Amino acid sequence: MINKLVEKIKKTHAPIVVGLDPMLDYVPAQVQQAAFAEYGETLEGAAEAIWQFNKAIVDATYDLIPAVKPQIAMYEQFGVPGLQAFQKTVDYCHEKDLVVIGDVKRGDIGSTSAAYATGHLGHVTVGSKSFSTFNEDFATVNPYLGSDGIKPFIEVCKQEKKGLFILVKTSNPSSGEFQDRLIDGKPLYEYVGEKVAEWGEDHMGDSYSYIGAVVGATYPEIGKVMRKVMPKSFILVPGYGAQGGKGADLVHYFNEDGLGAIVNSSRGIIAAYKQEKYAKYGAEHFADASRAAVEDMIADIDGALQAAK
Amino acid sequence: MINKLVEKIKKTHAPIVVGLDPMLDYVPAQVQQAAFAEYGETLEGAAEAIWQFNKAIVDATYDLIPAVKPQIAMYEQFGVPGLQAFQKTVDYCHEKDLVVIGDVKRGDIGSTSAAYATGHLGHVTVGSKSFSTFNEDFATVNPYLGSDGIKPFIEVCKQEKKGLFILVKTSNPSSGEFQDRLIDGKPLYEYVGEKVAEWGEDHMGDSYSYIGAVVGATYPEIGKVMRKVMPKSFILVPGYGAQGGKGADLVHYFNEDGLGAIVNSSRGIIAAYKQEKYAKYGAEHFADASRAAVEDMIADIDGALQAAK
Repeated sequence: MINKLVEKIKKTHAPIVVGLDPMLDYVPAQVQQAAFAEYGETLEGAAEAIWQFNKAIVDATYDLIPAVKPQIAMYEQFGVPGLQAFQKTVDYCHEKDLVVIGDVKRGDIGSTSAAYATGHLGHVTVGSKSFSTFNEDFATVNPYLGSDGIKPFIEVCKQEKKGLFILVKTSNPSSGEFQDRLIDGKPLYEYVGEKVAEWGEDHMGDSYSYIGAVVGATYPEIGKVMRKVMPKSFILVPGYGAQGGKGADLVHYFNEDGLGAIVNSSRGIIAAYKQEKYAKYGAEHFADASRAAVEDMIADIDGALQAAK
Repeated sequence: MINKLVEKIKKTHAPIVVGLDPMLDYVPAQVQQAAFAEYGETLEGAAEAIWQFNKAIVDATYDLIPAVKPQIAMYEQFGVPGLQAFQKTVDYCHEKDLVVIGDVKRGDIGSTSAAYATGHLGHVTVGSKSFSTFNEDFATVNPYLGSDGIKPFIEVCKQEKKGLFILVKTSNPSSGEFQDRLIDGKPLYEYVGEKVAEWGEDHMGDSYSYIGAVVGATYPEIGKVMRKVMPKSFILVPGYGAQGGKGADLVHYFNEDGLGAIVNSSRGIIAAYKQEKYAKYGAEHFADASRAAVEDMIADIDGALQAAK
């Protein structure tokens, strides 16, 4: 799957991923109203609204981008109907040949991590049958529990040719509270990054590893260091746009081959119609606003990469 | 909810929690067969099997125990039908007046953490209506992302009078890989524990805080230290029984009032019928074997607490 991701990035010239994190108040009134007319103001109604919202955005952008990253929390808050919308979204993105990064940030130990890996990336056995369930292509994983938590995910990735992005340095203001703590003069996130590199070397695709890392756009100096610590790992970079990152800040997350990183934008794309810059589209044409925002993001990042050559 | 937990522990003399982590191969053949006869060898069939298994164990033990801890990964692996079984299990345990600790180990930032908190502990708004979805009483949370990840959970807990158990030191062999790293001579888990104590002091129930911690049974010396670092926090202790912990090792996780900790056993209770000790019950009477294992666990832990007085 890392090979597919690399190939699609080369084809689209777009090392970006659209974060499908549909807060209900991002969904334009007409979409909500249509869903509520059919299902009422219920969890099913909310799930339908976010599914229709996602579908319109995917339809308007899939030819420009290699990948999407649905954030499962935004679906999970609507309970079982919300998770049905998550599943429909993943399935639909696969129909459109997009790589799907499940932003699930799961992490547990042993058989429990194996169960998460099975549910999100693998196949579960029921009697004599086998089923894939949520079936994302990559999952984000939390490293706090150490190798016991990561290895069951890696096992499933090996079987299924899928991949991981392990949290190394997150984009939020308080990420330093624990992640930046110095251990023998080196921050914790660097130790985690070294582990990612180690796991990654054993699980290589053609040019990049199946085991990637998350390093936030909001810490470009750290991105520069971590790029060297994990040369063969793709870096998933959250925090572009709405959280403050810009294309020019992000060139050091990439390798000299122009690859090795994929930058996420969620709100900046899916709620673009709410920004002054894209206001002309109006809520009615929200998906066209998202397409314009994707085009601008590609120009910003690809432009910065070209300028840095 | 912490007050209810304390009250129920006092009433049952059982500072224990039964981990409802139903691997499909724990479920006796007759339960699986009945479920598959109705739903086929499908995800729905698996979900029905684990739900019927849970229900029988809850029916056989609810009068002895204060709380249960369903591990959501074991349900999530069966996709949407599995999560329906999770929801049914939580709802049924509430009918039996049990405190439900959702072992979800979620953790993200800002609005994403808020969405997880809403889905598991709070109420979500849809148009003019409001719904509680998974509706656990406590949730386990991962601290790697720092305060930005924890505070949205605390906000929901304040509104709903619910609580958290934050991962401090987990029970697995490799937990030390990052958690034990020394920062100015003090391990990372101790810094996390200090934060838990700080968050906890601001969110007190009558005698204990709404904000608790997870410290594994497999590290009793660490339990002793962390008990002092977080005097007002309940400690959820995994790793009893199957992972190696014993009652006598655990007395230092408790305060002098005999409270302050709750010890989890999952496989040791729910798959008790597979142990030689309880083999006489047979797979047919698996729930009676679970009841006997609960009685033995209470005797072991309450006995150790009495002996330590």
